[in-house]
Amino acid sequence: MTESGKPILYSYFRSSCSWRVRIALALKSIDYETVPINLIKDGGQQFSEEFQALNPMQQVPALKIDGITIGQSLAIIEYLEETRPTPRLLPQDPKRRAQVRMISDVIASGIQPLQNLSVLKQVGQENQLTWAQKVIRSGFNALEQILQSTAGKYCVGDEVSVADLCLVPQVANAERFKVDLTPYPTISRINKTLLALEAFQVSHPCQQPDTPPELRA
Amino acid sequence: MTESGKPILYSYFRSSCSWRVRIALALKSIDYETVPINLIKDGGQQFSEEFQALNPMQQVPALKIDGITIGQSLAIIEYLEETRPTPRLLPQDPKRRAQVRMISDVIASGIQPLQNLSVLKQVGQENQLTWAQKVIRSGFNALEQILQSTAGKYCVGDEVSVADLCLVPQVANAERFKVDLTPYPTISRINKTLLALEAFQVSHPCQQPDTPPELRA
Repeated sequence: MTESGKPILYSYFRSSCSWRVRIALALKSIDYETVPINLIKDGGQQFSEEFQALNPMQQVPALKIDGITIGQSLAIIEYLEETRPTPRLLPQDPKRRAQVRMISDVIASGIQPLQNLSVLKQVGQENQLTWAQKVIRSGFNALEQILQSTAGKYCVGDEVSVADLCLVPQVANAERFKVDLTPYPTISRINKTLLALEAFQVSHPCQQPDTPPELRA
Repeated sequence: MTESGKPILYSYFRSSCSWRVRIALALKSIDYETVPINLIKDGGQQFSEEFQALNPMQQVPALKIDGITIGQSLAIIEYLEETRPTPRLLPQDPKRRAQVRMISDVIASGIQPLQNLSVLKQVGQENQLTWAQKVIRSGFNALEQILQSTAGKYCVGDEVSVADLCLVPQVANAERFKVDLTPYPTISRINKTLLALEAFQVSHPCQQPDTPPELRA
């Protein structure tokens, strides 16, 4: 927390995991300060000794709040949900909560980690696009099928949930990697509906303190 | 559920994510039936049409319970925790819960997905061991540092939690990939303590209905 008591979010404008948390903070109207961690500059500021002490995984996001520092976006969001429950981001019914968490984990464990910066570095420049597209398509094939049975207006029914916080940033990654979204009408429809909401707009990569001027919208 | 009303776990003896769920079921004394899905045989039984309809991600574990089918190990465990809360696998204090979830996600999103079968296939036979070792070491470096501030007897304090359910199967993977565990005394100590518990033994890969005879213990 800052001296003023505000939570501090260590974030990178383009990081899809940081965006998940920014949406949660916006939806719950939690005032916070951003400390940008540039994942490219200086060989990656996440590798600095100072940041490594804060988050040993050397990844963004990390949130300093209530006297603790939490890493891992879904752990952060679950903590916010438990300590700042309004508006809720998990349904009341346990079965629907399970659907929300399943969709979130499909993205957070099954898709995003396989196309993040550190893995792309290892597969080599010339294979990056093919690798990322393959991983995302494979995940989206599953996701589209799951959503056909869970979705209402949003991923699970008609209330915005953690699953939606994972979906929109992942679709943005898919677009960055030029994945054709035509085979995913449900994903595309929900993504579009969510992007019209204010919380998804103020948290958008093109609106952050560390967004480079040429990428601002 | 079976006709007898028992939950059905779709599992593979060696899958570390399946093992996480088997430990939860054992700790909570939930009687269940195993349907083995052999990830190697027949080009991978997880790719069958029948299983794909059950779990579009074509991964184990999946749990059929209370009339629904849940995929993704942590979503399954959170559901069990909400519907069968005893003994609890998440602490009561929200800050400790955040630590448990952070550690679980470090493993479930930050380590395991990068060394699972489908990724290893893509990096090619000759690079598999090096890749897996690198990924696990990098994650364990972070984990060891985190545990030094959260651990008691187990990963977070002195109660077995979801973090422990993730730790033990990941250490088993590390051993399979011949990762030297000397630099990780805290991980090694907690792993050893947990392996002495009955729930971790009955759920062990060497004790499953689909464990090949030569790997049985």
